[in-house]
Amino acid sequence: MSILAVGSIAFDSIATPSGRADNVLGGSATYFSLAASYFTPVRVVAVVGEDFTAEHENVFRKRDVDIRGIEHAPGKTFRWGGQYHDNLNEAKTDFTELNVFERFQPRIPPEFADTQFLFLGNIHPHLQAAVRLEMDGVKLTAGDTMNYWIQGTRNELIETLKLINVLLINDTEAKMLAGDSSVPRAARKVLALGPQALVIKHGEYGATIFFREGAFGIGSHPFRAPALPLEEVKDPTGAGDSFAGGFMGYIASQGQLNREVLKRALFYGGVMGSFAVERFGTERLQSLTRAEIEARFQVFRELTHLE
Amino acid sequence: MSILAVGSIAFDSIATPSGRADNVLGGSATYFSLAASYFTPVRVVAVVGEDFTAEHENVFRKRDVDIRGIEHAPGKTFRWGGQYHDNLNEAKTDFTELNVFERFQPRIPPEFADTQFLFLGNIHPHLQAAVRLEMDGVKLTAGDTMNYWIQGTRNELIETLKLINVLLINDTEAKMLAGDSSVPRAARKVLALGPQALVIKHGEYGATIFFREGAFGIGSHPFRAPALPLEEVKDPTGAGDSFAGGFMGYIASQGQLNREVLKRALFYGGVMGSFAVERFGTERLQSLTRAEIEARFQVFRELTHLE
Repeated sequence: MSILAVGSIAFDSIATPSGRADNVLGGSATYFSLAASYFTPVRVVAVVGEDFTAEHENVFRKRDVDIRGIEHAPGKTFRWGGQYHDNLNEAKTDFTELNVFERFQPRIPPEFADTQFLFLGNIHPHLQAAVRLEMDGVKLTAGDTMNYWIQGTRNELIETLKLINVLLINDTEAKMLAGDSSVPRAARKVLALGPQALVIKHGEYGATIFFREGAFGIGSHPFRAPALPLEEVKDPTGAGDSFAGGFMGYIASQGQLNREVLKRALFYGGVMGSFAVERFGTERLQSLTRAEIEARFQVFRELTHLE
Repeated sequence: MSILAVGSIAFDSIATPSGRADNVLGGSATYFSLAASYFTPVRVVAVVGEDFTAEHENVFRKRDVDIRGIEHAPGKTFRWGGQYHDNLNEAKTDFTELNVFERFQPRIPPEFADTQFLFLGNIHPHLQAAVRLEMDGVKLTAGDTMNYWIQGTRNELIETLKLINVLLINDTEAKMLAGDSSVPRAARKVLALGPQALVIKHGEYGATIFFREGAFGIGSHPFRAPALPLEEVKDPTGAGDSFAGGFMGYIASQGQLNREVLKRALFYGGVMGSFAVERFGTERLQSLTRAEIEARFQVFRELTHLE
């Protein structure tokens, strides 16, 4: 089944201990849709400026991502510059130029109205809610958010969480959202706000999915997928959105929605995140094969599998 | 097979967000030997003062730990006071009174000379090396260390690492020892110093075992065991030594020494660590049953197991 991804398209300028890259294609919708495209058809809704050329479009086209939902606005595309030091989980922002993204009002093309899987990238919770409410036939909605919205638009975010089935955030965001320093307690509190499942990403330590009692199966036992111990992370930008793309892409590609599917999806999330960080920008996500993905899935499985 | 554990016996005064406990029995040799005692016979070598009473001895006796190697010295037992705040992985030391531990010279009773499994708790690397060199018939030596020795007695530690088969340390210690901010790169560098396997403990995120190429099996793929997402950690003191006790106890209880045994041992390490932190001091480790341990092992397995 198709996924509709709503989020940002950006040009990123990134410095990491491994080097730097300037004005490379990025943004949550970009990383998400490329990662998900290896599993299922993807439709994207985003906004770009006049500096978004046919060359950039081709990155999506080559992965068969449906870009009829990309709005071309007068002005420049969203730009972000940041750097990572020893702690690759933490970016230091050099500059943020919202440009056309500042007035982004997601418009869902009529051809996309029947999409059953929805991913709401890290945008204003009010926009996330508006998109969700417009999509009547949606079967599963996943969403991301960040500290900026948790602190700045808390009430809107709380409302939006009622519309989201699976929230994907990291440890720091979960603790901040719940106001609790224990990750498992924070998870319980966040689930009480609405989502049926909560994926908490632990960076290099993997991710845990927490369930509301009875959601997608029996009980409420959490499940954890590892991350690959990578000797070199070239560029962590987009790792979270690539994770979400692998996670949602795998789910949408399956005929059913149950715990076992969500568990495997958590592994595929880690797999796509691990590819994303191997090169700067989206380079690695542009040229994968399904065989490479399956091989790495096996590596992830072996990493924690007892005979 | 028996394990010989050399380390500290202490009286700890601990404050955590869950409460406080004063002068409770602790120390690396204590946590280790209680945890390991559920798997295999344990012999302990340590030093205590005149304040170590029959009541304290009984904690070991009840778990059939052989305490003929506990030396009773004039003076007081080692005392430590510390507190934990929101970050339960980090203790803030209030006081350290070494007392009789200051002049600890491990003496191995002749009856212990045939022990095949050796655990060198967190003591001066020079003492660790001396014990190892005295034990001719040892099949596997595991050791722990800490920032204090990594910074203060680096050269002695480097020499000791050549005598240790499995080193168990945490992320911070591994990075410091290797001088590298990447955990997997740090692991490779530490393995180059001597150990055949390196267990890096990630606190609430579990632990990873890294192997030297060909050690205990084929290749050098790491393996990761999860930690339980616990809503309340009452007292993290001794979690690392309890982990080591479960890890080494399981290994010593097996007839063979291979990757599969070490992988399961990593899970049992996590299991014993998870019990230790449920109560203050060693309380939980004193009253477990093997059935409870096996049940929790299954929970750990389910936590990452894909059908």
